[in-house]
Amino acid sequence: MTSFLLAENRRKSIGVRVGNIQIGGGAPIVVQSMTNTDTANVKETTAQVKALADAGSELVRITVNTSAAAEAVPKIRDELDRLGCNVPLVGDFHYIGHKLLSETPSCAEALAKYRINPGNVGFREKRDQQFQTMVEMAIKYNRPIRIGVNWGSLDQELLAELMDKNAKHTTPLDAQQVMQIALVESALRSAALAENVGLSSSKIIISCKVSQVQDLIAVYKNLSEKCQYALHVGLTEAGMGSKGIVASTAGIGVLLQQGIGDTIRVSLTPEPGGDRTREIIVAQEILQTMGLRSFVPMVIACPGCGRTTSTVFQDLADRIQSYVRRKMPEWSLLYNGVETMQLAVMGCIVNGPGESKHANIGISLPGTGENPAAPVFIDGEKVTTLRGPNIAEDFHKIVDDYVAKTYLPKNS
Amino acid sequence: MTSFLLAENRRKSIGVRVGNIQIGGGAPIVVQSMTNTDTANVKETTAQVKALADAGSELVRITVNTSAAAEAVPKIRDELDRLGCNVPLVGDFHYIGHKLLSETPSCAEALAKYRINPGNVGFREKRDQQFQTMVEMAIKYNRPIRIGVNWGSLDQELLAELMDKNAKHTTPLDAQQVMQIALVESALRSAALAENVGLSSSKIIISCKVSQVQDLIAVYKNLSEKCQYALHVGLTEAGMGSKGIVASTAGIGVLLQQGIGDTIRVSLTPEPGGDRTREIIVAQEILQTMGLRSFVPMVIACPGCGRTTSTVFQDLADRIQSYVRRKMPEWSLLYNGVETMQLAVMGCIVNGPGESKHANIGISLPGTGENPAAPVFIDGEKVTTLRGPNIAEDFHKIVDDYVAKTYLPKNS
Repeated sequence: MTSFLLAENRRKSIGVRVGNIQIGGGAPIVVQSMTNTDTANVKETTAQVKALADAGSELVRITVNTSAAAEAVPKIRDELDRLGCNVPLVGDFHYIGHKLLSETPSCAEALAKYRINPGNVGFREKRDQQFQTMVEMAIKYNRPIRIGVNWGSLDQELLAELMDKNAKHTTPLDAQQVMQIALVESALRSAALAENVGLSSSKIIISCKVSQVQDLIAVYKNLSEKCQYALHVGLTEAGMGSKGIVASTAGIGVLLQQGIGDTIRVSLTPEPGGDRTREIIVAQEILQTMGLRSFVPMVIACPGCGRTTSTVFQDLADRIQSYVRRKMPEWSLLYNGVETMQLAVMGCIVNGPGESKHANIGISLPGTGENPAAPVFIDGEKVTTLRGPNIAEDFHKIVDDYVAKTYLPKNS
Repeated sequence: MTSFLLAENRRKSIGVRVGNIQIGGGAPIVVQSMTNTDTANVKETTAQVKALADAGSELVRITVNTSAAAEAVPKIRDELDRLGCNVPLVGDFHYIGHKLLSETPSCAEALAKYRINPGNVGFREKRDQQFQTMVEMAIKYNRPIRIGVNWGSLDQELLAELMDKNAKHTTPLDAQQVMQIALVESALRSAALAENVGLSSSKIIISCKVSQVQDLIAVYKNLSEKCQYALHVGLTEAGMGSKGIVASTAGIGVLLQQGIGDTIRVSLTPEPGGDRTREIIVAQEILQTMGLRSFVPMVIACPGCGRTTSTVFQDLADRIQSYVRRKMPEWSLLYNGVETMQLAVMGCIVNGPGESKHANIGISLPGTGENPAAPVFIDGEKVTTLRGPNIAEDFHKIVDDYVAKTYLPKNS
């Protein structure tokens, strides 16, 4: 019901094919990410692209920053194909993209999309010429582009032009507002130029990334009203740890709720030694908790309080969450719809039985002073009561049985 | 500028004093949380309340679920006062709150607010009578209450009544919508009853918690339009790990952006052995990244890509983020406004210098193949270039100097 309302409410955008994936035009919102390996290192980059794709990245972007990187791209593509991984690769170009694409046709061919940053394509008269060269390559290879503006590399000539114009107004805007306008203007002028060169609007995706949540919301609201291009949304430089997750979710979440966004990337800084795939999981969690897509069964768990002084329920919530994520690749091959399953692990009787009844499967563990028994609810009905030291294993078994009984086998 | 717009856009609510804190009526949005120790254990509960308050919880709720817990409450209050911690304590009552408050006056006196769950105050004729007793205690001790509805413990008689009524409609709503309406109805009927008993509307805070983001948004939108009471917002049973953070931020963030919410709680399930204060940090990060309040300097950091194959910048981002959080208690005693400082730690020249210039202090580390030098920008101007193995220490020193020079000393 809610998903339906959200779907009705989505901004209409022009669909763009990127390899085997559609972005915009009513397609489900696409999750994407980017490698942090040296692209010239074929082995490491292939492995990371594969890991990101396996985690759920539906497009993977790689930087193409040197000739060595450009030459590595077709090799990475071949390696991925050999591994059965058909995720589309997007090339991220700055400064010398026009040269790299022209001089390395096998790179231009191996990439499914080219990302062009209009602030980093050259200065003065070279700017439009080099941008045009990249667009011509996109036309030649029948590839879409993303015009990816970023406030950290905003076209300074354009910004100066708009600042000058603003200063002459009787009621000038503040500098932050001019910057927001300049980001949108940079994207839309570049898109118009690309269309003038001959690229179809169905080959153009736009992004205007900033690092502050309120700037992001203001910029994308403006952008979404001014064009019909498919939009890539992400908070740039979100940062590390929970701050990066919170800032990305707040910015992307508010926009998605307004129907804005056809593909998202969550730009987390990994902790040293941290896992790059975390940003995929967070992107999926944004879409799933907002009711926009389903990827993996979700576990609802109470925060615990003075009624739940044992850590049994924390352990169980942790174990069941890991369990469903581990089982999902197998389940998703066998069954339809298992990704929409809801599980509840609750710590006491205050909300336990109620919340458990709302889930597909819920378990309500005993709080302090309660009878040491854990009632289990399936589709709202109490079916059994678990006791003893093997509650976790018993509960996993109940989940397995439920999945096998409830979800239709694939190819049946 | 943006914060001003957000402030203009906030829903008008009736202000409520809770101890030394104001909730609603235009006050800054209050961060709160709840202990998970056994309240009857005075030592552990005092220690956790203190830790939560030190981390930034401006109210702390404790369950009062037994006579032993009720008797412990005044002792916990005394211990906290002795430690110089004046954070208001909120008592969380279910089932027997009317008894505990009546029979333990020292508990009723030590608490700054009583949380009443209308779904858990008793059945049939006893329900209103026991609710009334709790309200009378609030009047007697001049304390505010929170009417805290939760869908896991929604008043089943009320739900049945509304379901019956709905079934007779020519175009009945679906069960989920009736549940959403029942939550709001439960809160508003209880508030009306409390006012009838004689409690002022300036002593009433309302919450209607659910565990699904879209339900939360729908319920609070409805609630916010139907009353002027101050609202406590939180996603109940958000869960564990990044999923809990994402779901809470998405739900609370969308509502805050619409101007809804006077106090927030983030209900995370701690990982076994995890730190309870994490939910405070996430709550602060929601408010700060959305531009609603400032608590601690924020670090913007790029996610890294194939241009930034060393982990030097991840290390530095991690160290500087920990550094400012560690220094903040000292800085906040000495200087005004340091919590609004923005730092940027960037991995290469693509967006590095641009993003660094937008921050109060920014550092742009060398990417792969770049000159091994890290330009530092202060208030948009390049001031120095760091090199060598002590970049982190040198950068900390620059931050310290900047704080001392930039922010006005307190009591000056």
